[in-house]
Amino acid sequence: MTTLLTNIAELTTNDPSRTADPTGTLHDAAVLIDGGRVAWVGAVGDAPDAEEVVDAGRRAVIPGFVDSHSHLVFGGDRAEEFEARMAGQKYAAGGIRSTVAATRAASDDALRVRLRGFLGEMLAQGTTTVEIKSGYGLSVADEERLVRLAAEVTPEVTFLGAHVVPAEYADRADDYVDLVVGPMLDACAPHAKWIDVFCETGAFTVPQSRRVLEAGIARGLAPRVHASQLGPGEGVRLAVELGAASVDHGTYLTDDDIAALAASDTVLTLLPGVEFSTRQPYPDARRLIDAGVTVALACDTNPGSSFTSSMPFCIAIAVRDMGMTPAEAVWAATAGGAGALRRDDVGIIAPGARADLVLLDAPTRIHLAYRPGVPLVRRVWKDGVPVA
Amino acid sequence: MTTLLTNIAELTTNDPSRTADPTGTLHDAAVLIDGGRVAWVGAVGDAPDAEEVVDAGRRAVIPGFVDSHSHLVFGGDRAEEFEARMAGQKYAAGGIRSTVAATRAASDDALRVRLRGFLGEMLAQGTTTVEIKSGYGLSVADEERLVRLAAEVTPEVTFLGAHVVPAEYADRADDYVDLVVGPMLDACAPHAKWIDVFCETGAFTVPQSRRVLEAGIARGLAPRVHASQLGPGEGVRLAVELGAASVDHGTYLTDDDIAALAASDTVLTLLPGVEFSTRQPYPDARRLIDAGVTVALACDTNPGSSFTSSMPFCIAIAVRDMGMTPAEAVWAATAGGAGALRRDDVGIIAPGARADLVLLDAPTRIHLAYRPGVPLVRRVWKDGVPVA
Repeated sequence: MTTLLTNIAELTTNDPSRTADPTGTLHDAAVLIDGGRVAWVGAVGDAPDAEEVVDAGRRAVIPGFVDSHSHLVFGGDRAEEFEARMAGQKYAAGGIRSTVAATRAASDDALRVRLRGFLGEMLAQGTTTVEIKSGYGLSVADEERLVRLAAEVTPEVTFLGAHVVPAEYADRADDYVDLVVGPMLDACAPHAKWIDVFCETGAFTVPQSRRVLEAGIARGLAPRVHASQLGPGEGVRLAVELGAASVDHGTYLTDDDIAALAASDTVLTLLPGVEFSTRQPYPDARRLIDAGVTVALACDTNPGSSFTSSMPFCIAIAVRDMGMTPAEAVWAATAGGAGALRRDDVGIIAPGARADLVLLDAPTRIHLAYRPGVPLVRRVWKDGVPVA
Repeated sequence: MTTLLTNIAELTTNDPSRTADPTGTLHDAAVLIDGGRVAWVGAVGDAPDAEEVVDAGRRAVIPGFVDSHSHLVFGGDRAEEFEARMAGQKYAAGGIRSTVAATRAASDDALRVRLRGFLGEMLAQGTTTVEIKSGYGLSVADEERLVRLAAEVTPEVTFLGAHVVPAEYADRADDYVDLVVGPMLDACAPHAKWIDVFCETGAFTVPQSRRVLEAGIARGLAPRVHASQLGPGEGVRLAVELGAASVDHGTYLTDDDIAALAASDTVLTLLPGVEFSTRQPYPDARRLIDAGVTVALACDTNPGSSFTSSMPFCIAIAVRDMGMTPAEAVWAATAGGAGALRRDDVGIIAPGARADLVLLDAPTRIHLAYRPGVPLVRRVWKDGVPVA
């Protein structure tokens, strides 16, 4: 089955061979989908024949969003905590524990229904690739459950047993790390691709974080790190030293952090939904990009610090409050996310890539920031199949 | 035809007879719709029989949004101006003139298609009542066209010939005001309910604004005013003096403005999409509410300063950046908007009110801010008819 998507006013390919800038933007363009892959990209007038033709109606097409940071397997929500925080309470990482209790109490099927609901919601908003972390189980059996359920729906599964120290290990964080790098890692590694740790005051120290990451690497998992969300720390440099694919949050970065990131292959994944929902200052993405750091955008969908699942919302905030251009923000939400997952088959519209495409109900990608909050995703293809 | 909407986890009625606070919130509630009106509101266990029963599935129901400020009849867009502004250029009211040129060049049918597209988009986002202003014609024939087209879709039509001085009247603003209060008002008044003016440096002076408003009032139109968007001025006090239903923007208010509003029946309509899209400071709604000002929220959908049509987005910004509680923001976007239009049949779920209801895909209204950008509108009834 071949499908020609034609009459595209603005096509963001992210194929650096197409243009001097990284967005590889074409106008009056067409894309041929063959099975699950992109087979051809070019000008409308040069388009090959296809079994099915879809007229984009002079709208914009972008790659499907690659959301490289989410926590979608959990029970309950924390709407009242959000409301209290907006009335003046400060965000504390410890709130995670209330979600841990609700998650442990939920059945596999209840978690599955919720998870699939979020994935449908994300697809409808243009997200075709999603990474999912554990971290609300915090026992061997519950963490295993979460990575196993996540692995049913995505290959991008991250074991985050070291999300926070659970209540039953209060004041015994090192004992909890023993559990994480021992029996918990044994149970979770078969389902996971990534090892992650929340390296932050109130969560895990740098030596504890190093233990977790090195244990995961020894088991064949690749590292990624949560760091510098609530204040400056050494997590970013640890991530760079260990060759992490991504370090996530980066709300509080030092000049040394930025220099280290710029000289590395580690992507910095910014999570504007967190700053929105915890009312922290937004990171200055402009400064980071100008310094040579590779930036991704992700939602960090979770019930505590960021319950959005909307990549368009994150793009709008990145443009308004973080100094990114619309082109940079869309790149960061597609190719940037792919880089943060070390994937070259998504986040790009080029021959051989997965046919993950979003047709916007707008003539340009600028509209994702220009029309904040408006659902502008008109149609979505994942692996060449129309899904929303 | 009667419909019972039942099993509502949280019902925001805005009926002040229900609770001590103005939201009139009920839990485990049901609403009976009879024809286009609400016939009964109460506890699930007390609900009367109905021909049709809709199970809300323990989700939240709120009144349809009342968006009391929009400019939906126009041609073209200004995405590139937005992009340039985000790269550092300042917003100037003069940009309106490019939309005037595109609007004058568009046919009635082209404007109608666009207008109906926006209305559909708004309905899908829960907006069941919308006010529409002219102001992109700025000639007798074109302003008449815009109010006539607006009147095809809403009773809440506002004649805003005094939106900006058109290029052909540069340096002859008083001559343009003569046109507005003379032949233009003659042509537009039969289609309109409201008279409006942009009282701001760069648009119209206080004496010019007074002339426009008083001329409209003399023709039976009720006043509303754009003021204090770009800096402090005397527009708010003029609006209060003339008994305007609403003064809109209010980004820069003096203590005297706030005192005048608090002592008046004039609603202050805040437009967070404008501050978002022009990168101006958000107004401090907390201070205004605490001072006794009645606050509404609206989108100000227009191609220059605010192209969102999403009331949920405005609510999220109002909570995060303007100090409103979720309950206050939802009230402002429903009952507040109704007050700004002097309507008592919308923005409320009570016997006799129009059956304009929104079923959220969430258990509470808090989720509108807690899950920013996520389309949470599951089902919408307008005049008792399911429309989205």
